[in-house]
Order: sequence, then structure tokens, then C-alpha cells
Amino acid sequence: MLRTHTCGELRKEDGDKEVTLCGWVAARRDHGKLIFIDIRDRYGITQVVFVPSVSKDAHDVAQKLGPEFVIKLTGKVVVRPPKMVNADVPTGEVEVCAEGLEILNQAEVPVFEIDDSLDVSEDLRLTYRYLDIRREKLRTSLELRHKLTNLIHSYMDQQQFVNIETPFLTKSTPEGARDFLVPSRLSAGKSFALPQSPQLFKQILMVSGMDRYYQVVRCFRDEDLRADRQPEFTQLDLEMSFVTEEDVFALTEGLFKEIFKQVKGIDIQTPFPRMTHEQAKKEHNSDKPDLRKEGEEFSLTWIVDFPMFKYNEEEKRWESEHHPFTSIKEEDLKYLETEEYGKIRARSYDLVLNGNEIGSGSVRIHKKEMQKKIFDIIGFDEAEAEKRFGFLLKAFEYGAPPHAGAAYGVDRLVAILLGLDSIRDTIAFPKTQKGNCLLTDAPSAVDGKQLKDLGLSLHG
Amino acid sequence: MLRTHTCGELRKEDGDKEVTLCGWVAARRDHGKLIFIDIRDRYGITQVVFVPSVSKDAHDVAQKLGPEFVIKLTGKVVVRPPKMVNADVPTGEVEVCAEGLEILNQAEVPVFEIDDSLDVSEDLRLTYRYLDIRREKLRTSLELRHKLTNLIHSYMDQQQFVNIETPFLTKSTPEGARDFLVPSRLSAGKSFALPQSPQLFKQILMVSGMDRYYQVVRCFRDEDLRADRQPEFTQLDLEMSFVTEEDVFALTEGLFKEIFKQVKGIDIQTPFPRMTHEQAKKEHNSDKPDLRKEGEEFSLTWIVDFPMFKYNEEEKRWESEHHPFTSIKEEDLKYLETEEYGKIRARSYDLVLNGNEIGSGSVRIHKKEMQKKIFDIIGFDEAEAEKRFGFLLKAFEYGAPPHAGAAYGVDRLVAILLGLDSIRDTIAFPKTQKGNCLLTDAPSAVDGKQLKDLGLSLHG
Repeated sequence: MLRTHTCGELRKEDGDKEVTLCGWVAARRDHGKLIFIDIRDRYGITQVVFVPSVSKDAHDVAQKLGPEFVIKLTGKVVVRPPKMVNADVPTGEVEVCAEGLEILNQAEVPVFEIDDSLDVSEDLRLTYRYLDIRREKLRTSLELRHKLTNLIHSYMDQQQFVNIETPFLTKSTPEGARDFLVPSRLSAGKSFALPQSPQLFKQILMVSGMDRYYQVVRCFRDEDLRADRQPEFTQLDLEMSFVTEEDVFALTEGLFKEIFKQVKGIDIQTPFPRMTHEQAKKEHNSDKPDLRKEGEEFSLTWIVDFPMFKYNEEEKRWESEHHPFTSIKEEDLKYLETEEYGKIRARSYDLVLNGNEIGSGSVRIHKKEMQKKIFDIIGFDEAEAEKRFGFLLKAFEYGAPPHAGAAYGVDRLVAILLGLDSIRDTIAFPKTQKGNCLLTDAPSAVDGKQLKDLGLSLHG
Repeated sequence: MLRTHTCGELRKEDGDKEVTLCGWVAARRDHGKLIFIDIRDRYGITQVVFVPSVSKDAHDVAQKLGPEFVIKLTGKVVVRPPKMVNADVPTGEVEVCAEGLEILNQAEVPVFEIDDSLDVSEDLRLTYRYLDIRREKLRTSLELRHKLTNLIHSYMDQQQFVNIETPFLTKSTPEGARDFLVPSRLSAGKSFALPQSPQLFKQILMVSGMDRYYQVVRCFRDEDLRADRQPEFTQLDLEMSFVTEEDVFALTEGLFKEIFKQVKGIDIQTPFPRMTHEQAKKEHNSDKPDLRKEGEEFSLTWIVDFPMFKYNEEEKRWESEHHPFTSIKEEDLKYLETEEYGKIRARSYDLVLNGNEIGSGSVRIHKKEMQKKIFDIIGFDEAEAEKRFGFLLKAFEYGAPPHAGAAYGVDRLVAILLGLDSIRDTIAFPKTQKGNCLLTDAPSAVDGKQLKDLGLSLHG
């Protein structure tokens, strides 16, 4: 290590120690003979004083420091007299009296100050993301996101879930949005799709007997511009065998209780209240009502008993409300025979946090004949069903257990926990609403040779 | 839960309990009046006995059971007499005397038995992956992989690393292999690339002041067929600021010590021995020598002092040996001026486990002028360097700290820990050596309309 301590570490107990700190120049106050700088790293800020009589060399170098210069400094920890203590920072009881200073790297004057109180356009923040992330808001957001995912890993492991990675280069998935395609070179003219979710793979893992699967996983949807969506987003994806919706609820409630406790220091009440879709629509005119009561910071509610199908008036056909792998409530199975599809309720559920749908799931179909029946109702003929989902139907022939699962949006959850306006502030390198990366300038022009290798050409 | 216990849970202390188990029929022995079945789930196997005098109904249903049927059974735990104990399974002290049996799902006769001792062609195993994963070898591999990644998350968190997700839809990266492209629809004619590694993003995160980054992350390389490679693979990717190679070594050694202890129960010696690249080539004619001594199961060695450049005779130009972001050993900087590039040693390192390179890394360049100089030597002119890596060069202007990092292959590590022949046996849904998924049949034919939306057409 080039340093002995971080910039957030020194306390009065460290008085008289010889220390070396590394970090960025956060502020410089030149009082002629005395130069003060604040040195900053991820862990905090420490005040440093340069006194010519202590080190003329260090003082000389300190005169050249600009904002955001990267420095390494050596000196002695001095405990400040009580009335000089800066109560605003954890290191405020001390300062470092510099004995040596090395400029590790210079810096141009930053295009915006590393100060959250200043309003900076998002385009500028995304272009110079490395400056933006030095600001407390973004750093805090990324650190909390880390804490949240780490907590998910611990909790799911305790609950005997197995973290299993599923493919990114895969086949078109049926989530209803458009897939991103990845043309294959080895099979020119053919293409992979990036997954909209690992839905089919997690069901296959249940048929594989893995019993409890989870993953914190990236998903992809090539959607048109919509407020606060990202083409790639992260979800906690999970699936369980030999369970009912009650088990998914209990598992989820335990996890969220832990998250709110660890991240916000709040004890949330479990079980979460439940509301039927019908009641939500009737009483709140919404399928994701904001049910916060006065003084309540967070409100979590399950919305249940969603309709299984919705009628697409334009295309004159029935569609799945959740997705076609959702099972039907036992008491509504009779409407399959009478073809009263609008009356059928699904065994699906949404989790609503402060009026945001932060997750959804369902008890799945695990029998081939029922799955084929549902495909038939939503207008996939046998050939189409076979082509798109033949491997799942095949798997159902070889001993598929009853299973259920859910997926929860990590980006949105972090945004709500921190009260951020946009999920972009929870992602290190997000895309703009136009789907571009302002930092790297992706996507970029395609090389003709590369396209040719893929058996493709630009459309004339 | 549909069950009260798993199939690996019952012990003699559970004698006389009424239990419900769910799982797959692993074996059935029909002795006329008595029918025995083994019921299996992820957690183990339990023997069940059906006696007509206990439940005629259950016995009748049991007669219809085929291999891999999914069942739910209720019964009483009976402690076996000492000489009937089956010492081969943890549940061997008991059996369940069935009182009720429900077939949750039927199963076709599996195309191969769920038995690792049988040799099954890999094509068949990949096509029916859900049967393959029910076998102990695959299940154990996936469970160990989970344990390993969980351990990585804990260890890295303790070491104050922040798990930060980097984009999958990004810009071409410079790892030397071919990128997978993802054509953009919103910017038709342009394309994202899937990352060969998060190299540039992790360096940007160091410029962002995040200090310690890690990720267990999927990477993508569109390579031609090579033995035991996958187009998508997983690595532990990490980067640290204000450090030297010694810090990367110490962190890595601590992690591997923990992995070998937790996963294999082995205390490995740290620090790992180091060998220069020159010595490895001279004494072992290899840059990844297998240095196991007699009776030693595992050997971990750092190979250091790699050449910075290699001369490409065909193209008559210098190339990076590691990658162009690697810094140069201080004592060899003089050879830059004399243009004796072949003499320059890099601050890069490989970690070799039993003759396999399971990871590599380097101390990075953090100054713009040096970075441009290296680009120049490997033949990127200013325009090319600007186009490909302009955003990194720009970031280096705004206060880049000294930093270093590494990446370790997770698939290979799991394979070596378990003594598996192929990394495919560590991945739930791998591709074949031809880059196909036999389960889903990906990649598949591209829809003309989808291509048109991307501004592309099939090459005539």
C-alpha cells in the first residue's frame, strides 16, 4: 500500500503517529505561510496543514496543487485543541502536519465541482462519470447497492438457495418486449438473444431438481424510450420447488425485513398486507397503489389475484397478463372449459413499494398439457409453441415439480431506499434515455468487415 | 411448503414422526406385497416402504410409479433395526412407512439414468441438461460453484471492496479477441459490443475514487473453436487504488487460502512462490509450468516479469503481451528511449494453478502521456487511440490514481477444485465447442423483420 491510513480513519487516538495518506485534493486554502488542504478518498476527508518551518519542500509542492490533484503525503497526526475540532467530519479531531508531499498525478480543472449541492446537468455528469462518482451522492448509492446485494447473497445462502448463472447468449424469451440480438459468426445468419429474464432457465433448473435457485442478474429489453427505464437492468431472480405462493411471500418478507433493518435501520411489519387486483383497481384505480399512511416512510403490499388474460382489442386475441407460464387459481379452472377467459384469475402476485411495482412472480404451470392449453388460448399454434418453447414442454415430460418464483428489481429498490429520482443514479455507467452511453460513446459505428463475418450487411 | 422435510433430512431422532416428503422416484423395488422406493431431491435420498395393510391406496398408487415420477408422500418415520441400517446414505437409519402417496407429475422413461457411473455422451447430457443436473456430479459442481462465489462475496466485502456492476451493452474492448456485437435499433446502423472484460470500466472506477472494486462477472469472446473454451465465461474481476503488485498478491493469497480451506479443507501455504517468466521458460519451457511436487494436490505460483511487448513477425509490429494498459518496470523504462522494446519487462503477473493460468493482472498505467506512448509503440496512431480509448485517456486527465488489479477465471477454478475434465461441467447451461446450446437450440434463425429494424440484412 502506498498509504498507512485512509482519509476517513484518523482519530485523536492516532495523535503523534507518522502517517501516509493518498487521495484527491478536495480543497486548498492558502494563507501564505500556512497552506491547508483537505485530502479526500472513498472513506472520508482529512485536513492537512503545510508549515514551511516543518517542511519547506512539502510547502513548495503544496503551492502547486490544484483541485483533484492526486497526492501522497506523509506527516504527523496532530490532535486539535477542543475549540478547533471540526464536528462535521469524523476525522475532525485531528489534522496532519505535512512533512512530505508527492504529486501522484495532476488534474485538469474539473468540468464540475465535486460537490452534491451544485446542480449539474445529467448529460455532463454521465459524460464525466468518473467525476460524478467522486461526489457523495453517487458514491453512497453504489456503496448501498453493494451492501444490498451482499445482504441478498447472505440471506439466500442461509435459506439454502443456490446461486446459478444462466446464459446471456440465449434464445428469444417471451417477456413481451423486444429482444436484443447477438448475431452468431460461427453459425452465420443465425442469432442469439440477450435474455429479458432467466424465466425459462430457472424453470428448467426446477425440473433439474435444484430446488431453490437465485441470481442477481442482468436482464435486457430493447424498449422504446420510456421514463426511467434502462435497456439493461438488474433483478433478484428466484425460484423454489414444492411450494405455494405462501412460501414465496414468507421468503420475500424475510429478505425485505432484513434489507430495511440493515440498510435503513427500520423494522418493517411482516407479513405484508395483501390486496386483490380487483380491490386495488376499484378502490385506488391502480394495480400498484401507494398505500403509505401518514408518517410512514415505506409501504409494502402484495397485490394478488391478477387476471390471467387480457383481451387485446386491436389484435382481437387474448394475451397473458403476467406471462404464459403462470398457473391458474384452482377455483377458476372451470372457466377454461366455458372459455370465459376474462374471469380467470392467475396465481400471480406483484410486490408494490410506495406505489412502485418492485417485483412480481407466480406459481408456475408444471404440466405439459396445461402449458399447451395456455399457449393455445394466447394464439400460439402447436408449431409456434414448439418452435419457441419446445425445450420447456419437453422438459415437462421428464418429471417437473410444482414450482413458484419471483423477480425483484434491484435498481428501483436502491433508488427508493435512497429517495433518488432516477434509477440512473443507482447504476455506475447507465445509458441515457436514448439508450446511449455518454462516457464511451456506445453504440458506435459498425465495421463492415465485422458485419460481413456475421453474414450481415447494412440495410441499403 | 408441500413437504415437512427434505429427502436428506430424516435421522433416527425423527422416529415415529408423521412426515411429508416430495421428490423424484430414484428407484423402485416391487416385492409383491412390499414395495420399496427411494425418493430423491437435491438434499438426499430416503427409503420409503409401501405396505398394503398400512395403506391400500398408497400401495396401489405406488404400483404405477415409474422412474423420475414426481411424488408427494406422507407417512411415519420408522427407525430401522441396527443390522438393517444403510450406512451408505445419511438417512440410512430410518425409512418412511407410507400412508399416502400423490403423483405430482409423471415422467417419461429418462433418456439416460440418473447415475454418474454410467457413461453418457455429452451431446445427450447437454440436450437433456435437466436430467444431467439431477446427477450427483453436476449438482455437486453447481453447489460448489455457489459456495465459491458466496465465499468470494464475503471475503471481498471484508476487504472493503465494493461490488459494482459494469455494462454489458458497451463499446469494443481491447482484449485482442473478437467482440460479440449487439446491433442497436434506436441508433440503427450502430452497434454495442459485449465486454471481453470490464477492464476499462474498472480503471474508470479507480479514477472515480471507488478505491476497491470487484465483480463476479460474465465476459464474452467470439473465438474460433478451441478446446474447453466458452463464448461466455465468468471471472472474479478486481481493481485497487494506491497499491503495488504486492497488495494484489496478498489479497489474492488470502482469498485462495480461504477458498482451499473452505472448499477442500486444505491449508495452502502463503505467500505463493514466485518465478520470473524468463526462469519459467528456461527451466520448464512454459509460461505456466505445473510445479506440483510429489504428493501435492495443488500448486499455486505467481509468474512475474513478463515481457511488455512481443514482436509480431507476420505483421512486422510490436504487440502487447498482456494488454496495453500495463505499466513498465521502473528499471526498464530506459529501454523506451533506446527503443529496445523486446527488453522491457511489464509489471504484470499470472497466477498458475497446477499448470493452468487461472488469472492474471498488472499494475496499470495511470498517466496519459505514458498510455499514449504505449499505444504508439503497438501501432495505434493518435486518431485510432482516440477513437477506441479516448474516454480513458480523457479520464486520465482528471486525477487518475496509481492502481493495479487482476482477474481470475471462476469456471476453470471450479473445474480444477473438483478435478473435472471440462469447464462445461461447472456451467449449468454451457455451449458446445461449436458454440451452440443443445437445450434451447440457440442461436436460431433471425427474423427478417427484426433485422430490418436494426438496419441490417442478411448478406446475399
